[in-house]
Amino acid sequence: MAFKLTILGCSSATPTLYRHSSAQILNVNERLFLIDCGEGAQIQMRKYHIKFQRIDHIFISHLHGDHYLGLMGLLFTFHLLGRTKEIHLYANADLKKIIDLQIEISKAKLFYPLIFHPIDDTVVNEIYSNNRISVTTFPLDHRIPTVGFLFKEKEKERKIDKEKIQVLEIPLEEFEKIKKGADFLDKNSGRLYKNSYLTFPNTAPVSYAYCSDTGYTESYLSVIKDVDLLYHEATFMQDKLDNAREKFHCTAIDAATIAAKANAGQLMLGHYSARYDDLNPLLREAKTVFENTLLAEDGLDMIIE
Amino acid sequence: MAFKLTILGCSSATPTLYRHSSAQILNVNERLFLIDCGEGAQIQMRKYHIKFQRIDHIFISHLHGDHYLGLMGLLFTFHLLGRTKEIHLYANADLKKIIDLQIEISKAKLFYPLIFHPIDDTVVNEIYSNNRISVTTFPLDHRIPTVGFLFKEKEKERKIDKEKIQVLEIPLEEFEKIKKGADFLDKNSGRLYKNSYLTFPNTAPVSYAYCSDTGYTESYLSVIKDVDLLYHEATFMQDKLDNAREKFHCTAIDAATIAAKANAGQLMLGHYSARYDDLNPLLREAKTVFENTLLAEDGLDMIIE
Repeated sequence: MAFKLTILGCSSATPTLYRHSSAQILNVNERLFLIDCGEGAQIQMRKYHIKFQRIDHIFISHLHGDHYLGLMGLLFTFHLLGRTKEIHLYANADLKKIIDLQIEISKAKLFYPLIFHPIDDTVVNEIYSNNRISVTTFPLDHRIPTVGFLFKEKEKERKIDKEKIQVLEIPLEEFEKIKKGADFLDKNSGRLYKNSYLTFPNTAPVSYAYCSDTGYTESYLSVIKDVDLLYHEATFMQDKLDNAREKFHCTAIDAATIAAKANAGQLMLGHYSARYDDLNPLLREAKTVFENTLLAEDGLDMIIE
Repeated sequence: MAFKLTILGCSSATPTLYRHSSAQILNVNERLFLIDCGEGAQIQMRKYHIKFQRIDHIFISHLHGDHYLGLMGLLFTFHLLGRTKEIHLYANADLKKIIDLQIEISKAKLFYPLIFHPIDDTVVNEIYSNNRISVTTFPLDHRIPTVGFLFKEKEKERKIDKEKIQVLEIPLEEFEKIKKGADFLDKNSGRLYKNSYLTFPNTAPVSYAYCSDTGYTESYLSVIKDVDLLYHEATFMQDKLDNAREKFHCTAIDAATIAAKANAGQLMLGHYSARYDDLNPLLREAKTVFENTLLAEDGLDMIIE
């Protein structure tokens, strides 16, 4: 199973003509997870042909406007499109106050259940799990409560070696147990076949971490260790290190340092200051520390494997 | 003095790929008045080269999301761009609660004074006036408190007939009085020259009315009488008249009927339902009632004279 990531916005506080505020879609087998929802996210979704109604879960990292101001419009649009299916929203508890106030004032009533899951930003916490993936939050170091998200595929069942199954005439009802790691006892011969003899390992589980916004901290290295793709904020270049520290943001080199120390497979930079038109200097700086780095840009589609 | 109108968005409740939510800029001698501020308005302003910092006055018709959800992001952007000049915001009092809650939760502090002017939506009321124009609100008929806006240039001073001024050797200090309508008494000859002999009438004052959202009502005809340009919502075509009535919206024919009865110079349709890709059928319907009609579209620039 691959994860497909689509960037809807990768600007920091002020959107620019070419970069919307933070928002992205993680597609896991055609179930869509929306991560942050900056202003204009719903229009970006139309532009990039995202099927709105496949979104059931929305994750908001923190309550700075550039990470959630597109949410209210999207919630109204779901309603106007006739949605009846639940939406699960994971965010700081205060977001519920903002939503409730606006629904009350506009005298709206959403057709669908909006199920709010407040996030505890002080601990590492698995906040969602299905049979395929889990989502874990971890504290980031920002001016207001902020979390990162780790999307991780679950350990996959081993693959049966079909040739051996045929030769040994293993009955169908044993398959599920063997996939889960059981050995096989051949009752006719009395011989025990080890699971490792009957199966292949499956492909490694895929993982994706989203870290925005945060000052430089190594507190979450252990959580995102060995992640396949790390999206990390890189608001500034190194000559603005003081700005970064003061505002609890990172430089491109900070992001690359985190990627290196976490042994990430790949790093995607994002959340750029509006001052940068050309992002290649940020990429070059990051690459001096972590070679396998790329730039997020609006509309970028990427398979994570 | 001409008014220049720029349409930033003209969709109804759900934005589409080509039509943003309601927002427009009225440029009066390079002072910019923002009328409604749907999601994405600030990005549209960048696209259409609107100089953000020339906006000092913002008018919000009502608190349905498609008319104000772009405001919070714009207010934050003013702050991040270092604005220190006052912003005057005219809207239903509840908008202040929405803004205050979001500022509090994001632990932001705006650098500039945000001066809130609550609108009384039950009466016709002049809410703003400078030496050039006045802005008047009037009640519309919608599901929640909603007002229309009339922007009206003030009666202009008469133009002096320079030839007569020279011949009669009228002293400079008399000019202002004559412009304001005074006659001139020539002390040497004892002769009185009537103002109408010394001056020409100036061009007629320009006016612009914004009516969105509203069901069909003739209650504001007297307020917008003889307006040069009427922007009127036309959410539906006539075959959806029942929808329009039920939802307190208008059809294109309703809008045209209002334009005709108000003796408007020109009608601009807007606030279209997202169901219409091609808007020409709406235009054709409106023109059966009021010929001088045009369609709003995102990015349209228009001089009102």
